Amino acid sequence: MISVTRRETFSASHRLYNPELSEAENLELFDKCANPNGHGHNYVLEVTVAGEPNSNSGYVIDMKKLKEVIRREIISRVDHKHLNYDVDFLKDVIPTAENMVKAFWDILKDKVGDARLQSIRLRETENNSVEYKG
Amino acid sequence: MISVTRRETFSASHRLYNPELSEAENLELFDKCANPNGHGHNYVLEVTVAGEPNSNSGYVIDMKKLKEVIRREIISRVDHKHLNYDVDFLKDVIPTAENMVKAFWDILKDKVGDARLQSIRLRETENNSVEYKG
Amino acid sequence: MISVTRRETFSASHRLYNPELSEAENLELFDKCANPNGHGHNYVLEVTVAGEPNSNSGYVIDMKKLKEVIRREIISRVDHKHLNYDVDFLKDVIPTAENMVKAFWDILKDKVGDARLQSIRLRETENNSVEYKG
Amino acid sequence: MISVTRRETFSASHRLYNPELSEAENLELFDKCANPNGHGHNYVLEVTVAGEPNSNSGYVIDMKKLKEVIRREIISRVDHKHLNYDVDFLKDVIPTAENMVKAFWDILKDKVGDARLQSIRLRETENNSVEYKG
Amino acid sequence: MISVTRRETFSASHRLYNPELSEAENLELFDKCANPNGHGHNYVLEVTVAGEPNSNSGYVIDMKKLKEVIRREIISRVDHKHLNYDVDFLKDVIPTAENMVKAFWDILKDKVGDARLQSIRLRETENNSVEYKG
Amino acid sequence: MISVTRRETFSASHRLYNPELSEAENLELFDKCANPNGHGHNYVLEVTVAGEPNSNSGYVIDMKKLKEVIRREIISRVDHKHLNYDVDFLKDVIPTAENMVKAFWDILKDKVGDARLQSIRLRETENNSVEYKG
Repeated sequence: MISVTRRETFSASHRLYNPELSEAENLELFDKCANPNGHGHNYVLEVTVAGEPNSNSGYVIDMKKLKEVIRREIISRVDHKHLNYDVDFLKDVIPTAENMVKAFWDILKDKVGDARLQSIRLRETENNSVEYKG
Repeated sequence: MISVTRRETFSASHRLYNPELSEAENLELFDKCANPNGHGHNYVLEVTVAGEPNSNSGYVIDMKKLKEVIRREIISRVDHKHLNYDVDFLKDVIPTAENMVKAFWDILKDKVGDARLQSIRLRETENNSVEYKG
Repeated sequence: MISVTRRETFSASHRLYNPELSEAENLELFDKCANPNGHGHNYVLEVTVAGEPNSNSGYVIDMKKLKEVIRREIISRVDHKHLNYDVDFLKDVIPTAENMVKAFWDILKDKVGDARLQSIRLRETENNSVEYKG
Repeated sequence: MISVTRRETFSASHRLYNPELSEAENLELFDKCANPNGHGHNYVLEVTVAGEPNSNSGYVIDMKKLKEVIRREIISRVDHKHLNYDVDFLKDVIPTAENMVKAFWDILKDKVGDARLQSIRLRETENNSVEYKG
Repeated sequence: MISVTRRETFSASHRLYNPELSEAENLELFDKCANPNGHGHNYVLEVTVAGEPNSNSGYVIDMKKLKEVIRREIISRVDHKHLNYDVDFLKDVIPTAENMVKAFWDILKDKVGDARLQSIRLRETENNSVEYKG
Repeated sequence: MISVTRRETFSASHRLYNPELSEAENLELFDKCANPNGHGHNYVLEVTVAGEPNSNSGYVIDMKKLKEVIRREIISRVDHKHLNYDVDFLKDVIPTAENMVKAFWDILKDKVGDARLQSIRLRETENNSVEYKG
């Protein structure tokens, strides 16, 4: 088994806010991330799939196809968007990096051909990142 | 003369939109950057000052003080903000990186002690940056 | 389970030297790292914790709190220090990256709230790093 | 057990082409990577070994020795080479990153002293990488 | 005047060889870069243009258009190519980074709209780069 | 004229301390950088030379030779050293990055062959750097 990782980037804004909590609780919980007008990030998304290299191609997966899948299914729907308002598959969750990788996983898990989705990593800043392995 | 550069980062959202133009003109001009709910970036700000090293300290400027000036005057006012709505000194301009470095220059130019402000660079993404030298 | 990683940096000096060995053996073992006056690095520390996202916050752990713990427990005690002389919890070990991550693990393992400490990575240079998973 | 990772780089050219397939099939499979005159990359190789730190040295492995092994066994044979024509141990495979890490593994697995070879990662571009764990 | 920089990447192979010199002289001059089958790099190209921001857009140049120009005029002609054999505008020169930036300059200098081409930087490896200002 | 930049790295320790000032003044001036046992950094050194490409080689300067000069004249004398005690050419100055680039300049300015030394940049941390142009 060999793992293959594709890195893509997108720029988006979000606001961390739980409507079931009070303003004071939101501020306590999310601090400046609860700013009503939101803020944003250059997200770095790393999608890892695993499998045996195909004997014809030497590829676990054609990186061009993995790139196209990630761009069509994820990047085109989140890039230059406000994650709270513009993204259908994030409508019901607080758009923390944790909730985002879980949503990305559900979208991608059956779309990587013969390979197996192994990990999704999302870097929100140069200091903060999350990883989900299903 | 020696140049000294301090790097700081902030995360903000913005929308590129000119209210004096029609919706169609804005879309033509700014494309997905005109998305009504905005989008965001992890900005990297590099402030360069120049001068002769002080004979007592060997410093052109005390980097701790330069850091404090940048954080107090710029970072605290733009980090985790929406640049169109939350930042007083950007109220009258479209918050492109170009307009941002000019606004940052006006704020910082008289606040770097005996050194001379030489350059402000702002990196909006890993592929796009601007630089202003006054 | 989702993993969350926080990256922090510190600058320190150290000397690799085993007092139970001869000078010749130390030089053989540690080469230029045994230089009597020491040398130093900009260390990059990556602390990974794992858990389920809290349903109220969408966070595995509040990154602000993880940052504060790492800075209070580790960074404040090693940053701008000589690791052989100035750091109580490294007094009895040769401050290799390997011994450092083990010492960091013992300090942090019970201080990450409801999350589980999963990994500590320490990058000593851009080419050399170590990782410990307990 | 602690993991220790050494990073090395090399620059090489290659062509992705399967002589058992037709020109059309090669173009379909490898697209611009099948360009007859080849193309190239700055590869980044990360070799990870694991073990217990030695009580005399505090090292899992002497990084100088790991560096020398990687340079002698791998880098000297692929750096500034054409991977299809100049590298004996890649003669019979299509030099995809997947096939390269497997070949590197076979070479290195018995040459890391008392430590255990744990992982080989190969970054072909800033966006594409593969990892093999044996 | 504000400078605006766009970063693009391409992967190519080349061979440093002067047909007017002997084999021995080429080897003396270019060492392993003269390897007959060539080698390759992930090149990073940074194109900087300067001008006054347009009052309607706040842009010195529309980064989308600068990106399109660089990709159409340069990247599409060098990416996944052998620089000695596949690139018409490099046919008569040894494809050193120095000669490449000069050739890129001649192509781009009249294609950046109202802005002025200010600098072209080409990074061949993480350690080696060149810059040309016309 | 084309500029050529070579990047090298070294790891060293230092202490910022002016023996002509009192302890209190040193602490006021240098804060934690005055720690008696010192601290350290992974320094990144970027040396830029300028000239016309040689018509035989297409090189402004042979990068291998520039690398050898930098390593012989600078890196071998500062790498894995304590800058206050182990480096003859820094004996009489406080080893701030500012004073270091000036000392490096004096050493390198007549040793870059037919090219002209144009700039020396020294990065002390990922956030702090200095540049000297003679």
